[in-house]
Amino acid sequence: MRKLVALPVLSADALSSVAYGPEALLAVLVLAGTAGLGYVFPVSGAIVLLILVVGLSYRQTIRAYPHGGGSYIVAGDNLGPVAGLVAAAGLMTDYVLTVAVSIASGVAAVTSAIPGLASVTVPLGLGVIALLLAGNLRGVRQAGVLFAAPTYAFIIAMFLLIIIGLTQGFGEGFTPRPGDPAVTATEGVGLLLIMRAFSSGATAMTGIEAISNAVPAFRPVAWRQARTTLSWMTGLLIAMFAGIIVLAHVADVVPSGQETVLSQLAHLSFGSGWLYVFVQAATAAVLLLAANTAYNDFPRVLSLLARDEFAPRMFMRLGDRLAYSNGIILLSLAAALVFVAFDGQTTALIPLYAVGVFLAFTLSQCGMVVHWWNKRSPNWRRSMAFNALGALLSFLVFITAGISKFTSGAWVAILAVGLFLLLTLRIHRHYSSVRAGLRLRPDTAPAPQRTATGAPENEEREELPDDVHHLVLVALATLDLAGLRALAYAASLGQPVLALHIGLTEEEAQRSRAYWTAWGDHVPLEIVVSPYRATVAPLVHYVQALHQQHPGLTLTVVLPEIVTRHRRYQLLHNRTAPRLRRALRPLPKVVITAVPFHV
Amino acid sequence: MRKLVALPVLSADALSSVAYGPEALLAVLVLAGTAGLGYVFPVSGAIVLLILVVGLSYRQTIRAYPHGGGSYIVAGDNLGPVAGLVAAAGLMTDYVLTVAVSIASGVAAVTSAIPGLASVTVPLGLGVIALLLAGNLRGVRQAGVLFAAPTYAFIIAMFLLIIIGLTQGFGEGFTPRPGDPAVTATEGVGLLLIMRAFSSGATAMTGIEAISNAVPAFRPVAWRQARTTLSWMTGLLIAMFAGIIVLAHVADVVPSGQETVLSQLAHLSFGSGWLYVFVQAATAAVLLLAANTAYNDFPRVLSLLARDEFAPRMFMRLGDRLAYSNGIILLSLAAALVFVAFDGQTTALIPLYAVGVFLAFTLSQCGMVVHWWNKRSPNWRRSMAFNALGALLSFLVFITAGISKFTSGAWVAILAVGLFLLLTLRIHRHYSSVRAGLRLRPDTAPAPQRTATGAPENEEREELPDDVHHLVLVALATLDLAGLRALAYAASLGQPVLALHIGLTEEEAQRSRAYWTAWGDHVPLEIVVSPYRATVAPLVHYVQALHQQHPGLTLTVVLPEIVTRHRRYQLLHNRTAPRLRRALRPLPKVVITAVPFHV
Repeated sequence: MRKLVALPVLSADALSSVAYGPEALLAVLVLAGTAGLGYVFPVSGAIVLLILVVGLSYRQTIRAYPHGGGSYIVAGDNLGPVAGLVAAAGLMTDYVLTVAVSIASGVAAVTSAIPGLASVTVPLGLGVIALLLAGNLRGVRQAGVLFAAPTYAFIIAMFLLIIIGLTQGFGEGFTPRPGDPAVTATEGVGLLLIMRAFSSGATAMTGIEAISNAVPAFRPVAWRQARTTLSWMTGLLIAMFAGIIVLAHVADVVPSGQETVLSQLAHLSFGSGWLYVFVQAATAAVLLLAANTAYNDFPRVLSLLARDEFAPRMFMRLGDRLAYSNGIILLSLAAALVFVAFDGQTTALIPLYAVGVFLAFTLSQCGMVVHWWNKRSPNWRRSMAFNALGALLSFLVFITAGISKFTSGAWVAILAVGLFLLLTLRIHRHYSSVRAGLRLRPDTAPAPQRTATGAPENEEREELPDDVHHLVLVALATLDLAGLRALAYAASLGQPVLALHIGLTEEEAQRSRAYWTAWGDHVPLEIVVSPYRATVAPLVHYVQALHQQHPGLTLTVVLPEIVTRHRRYQLLHNRTAPRLRRALRPLPKVVITAVPFHV
Repeated sequence: MRKLVALPVLSADALSSVAYGPEALLAVLVLAGTAGLGYVFPVSGAIVLLILVVGLSYRQTIRAYPHGGGSYIVAGDNLGPVAGLVAAAGLMTDYVLTVAVSIASGVAAVTSAIPGLASVTVPLGLGVIALLLAGNLRGVRQAGVLFAAPTYAFIIAMFLLIIIGLTQGFGEGFTPRPGDPAVTATEGVGLLLIMRAFSSGATAMTGIEAISNAVPAFRPVAWRQARTTLSWMTGLLIAMFAGIIVLAHVADVVPSGQETVLSQLAHLSFGSGWLYVFVQAATAAVLLLAANTAYNDFPRVLSLLARDEFAPRMFMRLGDRLAYSNGIILLSLAAALVFVAFDGQTTALIPLYAVGVFLAFTLSQCGMVVHWWNKRSPNWRRSMAFNALGALLSFLVFITAGISKFTSGAWVAILAVGLFLLLTLRIHRHYSSVRAGLRLRPDTAPAPQRTATGAPENEEREELPDDVHHLVLVALATLDLAGLRALAYAASLGQPVLALHIGLTEEEAQRSRAYWTAWGDHVPLEIVVSPYRATVAPLVHYVQALHQQHPGLTLTVVLPEIVTRHRRYQLLHNRTAPRLRRALRPLPKVVITAVPFHV
């Protein structure tokens, strides 16, 4: 990728964060009224410093991990697998929240422009998630002009807004708005409030790590190009963040429930003309793009976890369109759940957001400190210092967010991280024990050998004896062509066959028996009468009883299976087969065979 | 059931409708301001008349169908299966909307009392649906004191409210409320508005048919008891509906977005004391109970449709707790979808509601007219007259609702009914054709006969030739104990065996080959190299190619299957098996066998 393409594609997530970061900061400060708003510059200054330090810190990561250094890899490599997992836990909650927050904020940009849509916020957001799900399952790739345009449009819109707004503000002065809501304090200014404001505003830098993950996608010399792009992004982020804060201060704009701060600022500068529409449309578009980046990253990290046996293997599977479909579906479900639970409100989601992000940042930077200490490559002292500073500040934000917003939502994120850790470690333990159980041991598992009579010797002496005794059991629901096909297959195997029919009433059983006799009685038939229309349980009981009587038998249960020409009709048939499969699976020495019949 | 138990259980749905019916009526009239509200008595009078006629009409149904006369059965019996299906379509949309509307209205009762919860309307409603889902899957039965209490509490609350309210209103006069919103007209009074108000108010009688469905549940003489109960219910319904309308008129209460009419009335009469809380709690409880009745009826009607082959057979299945689990799940999903799509707002849902209800009413009453005409039992003329009048009025409401509220939501209900018809007819056609395809024909399907050598003759001459030639194909992902078990099973069948391994890289393939040779090479091994981690497609292609070369072969594909001790770990294994099954299913003469290995 060239820098001019990489910049918009990789920085959409970070830059779009200024659509909600400054607003989140102001929304906390305004709780303490005018006194609270007086702290806007110190708090914002601290955030700008933070962006600068973390940006410099990630410059070091790019140099050290030219093949891409995501938090999971960097933390896992240098601090051990558990630290990697914690970083991954932070990342995963972060990605889910990126989708939820970006969509909530994007929908707010739309409803600010068209207030009539405010009542359908939740359906609108769910619609967008469905769209992202469908698009990514079909394999949309993040590249090309289509993906570069919204970011550039947003950058242009923000700079237009800031420059024109400030010119107006300092030149002519703003006209006081009619019906301006009075700022009344509901809380006093305290350390906790300032901490909350700081950690809320810090969400403006979410997504800043994206470039360090994607170094190999740059043109050579990749790491140099990536560093330059990162510097550009950091600069733009700081300029836009600071500009919006200053403009909002000058224009006396405070967050309101109905309209976003950006929309209020745009209204002030541009009225309701096409420039206003441009700002809102660019904001919504870049936020949609930001949500889409999570759709690339979440399934990728999950597939790394699956590769390392920390997540179910199904997340490693590439679909027909080379997309990790299962990860994409999981992300959509989780984001939709979070979105609905918090009613699609950005302000309600922000407290959850900072925790995961800065947890991953902290561990990634800590990993880099260890990396430099071990490597001692040229300039290692300076790089280590930058990373250490980044780690320290990120850790401070993490702690700040965790404490000050614990009750207002951060506990959900912390709980999610904890559950994620428990779950992944448990999965890993399970996979390890299964792998040990399946391993071939030369001494215990001799190869099967065909004996002179053609029957094979068997390797599992305790369970399948030397000559395997078979009984093939054909389960018949009704006596039809599909059932006969299954019977014919069973008989052709050359092993003893028994047909089993579950009758619903005594009369039906007698009718079936008579029919069977008339038909020829070539295969012994057993009829079990079951009231209550149950079919699975009686069959399982029969198999269990048979097994107790003849523990040496290997039972092959043959099920006729109706196959329809069109797949959509398949839903109308064979619904008992999966349940039967599940019920028979735990029994020893029971093999299940499905014989298809094509209608 | 005794009458005193039957009344509350079976009439919860109908009586609870007065929580939203009068409000829906007023909400339409208020659009035309004071002039519109002037029409409240004529419109309400018409609705009272409608309730009376439909009530009398259902008395006839009870006499004629002492074993329970749901709309599907009555319409299907007398007017033919398609009319039955149309009635069922109306019923099914009705049940889904009963759940959505009752929960929306119940949540509104709660948020009227606790305005702070208004922002979580949608999550709250989804939580209630989840609760109903879980409860009904576990087999909650609608009987006993637990289910009788809310209805009686609601009846008492309504009569207290109406009597005390009217006494205060006519005696002392109400104190004018501060900040009473001025009633401004946004529409003129016209026929369409009156029609809309009428059909909105008519939702107050939804659920009136419940008693006629449940006649056999009464004590003997059942139909007499049921008729008496129906009369009581009709009387209560009319009294409560009329009382609320009169009280709202006297107290000058009009619907507001934030608070229900009932809550406003209760506030006026009782302030915010415990009597107010009692009214709101009773309203919420009876609405929850009403939603629960749909959880009994929807799966039952669906199982009847499945029995008649108009719906997938899986809806006929009784779960472990003797509940139609699949129907319960489908109802929950549909209701949740509707609830979220309309943002949990009763007013938005009402336009959808009337269409389905009155469609089913109309067809059921029409069926009764035909029934009396054919039977000519004593007093048939009078009964037929009542039913004809009921059919006519129901039809008028159906048409009124369909026309006047078409654009505001009725089109959704009409579309749902249409789609339902299409789908059920299509399913019926499919089942019929499959049944025909599976039927045994004495001439074409001779019985399989064991030949002298023990090999059976086969009945499907064109597809399975006289002596079936088998090839058993063992698909191995890795060479482990589970794979060896599958190989041993395959070899023990005494048929030719071929092992097939999908290698991901050329090196891995060579390594596997070397390992196989070292292990003994007892069974021929074929290795297919597949890039992109795909395993299903290469295997399917291999099977297809094998089939083209040897069209006479019956292929048995043996899959090793890992079985974990705890079912929850099963999710971590064998995720490719179902996909492989789906992919191999359409191929002719391919049988799939799963050999379990217990870890």
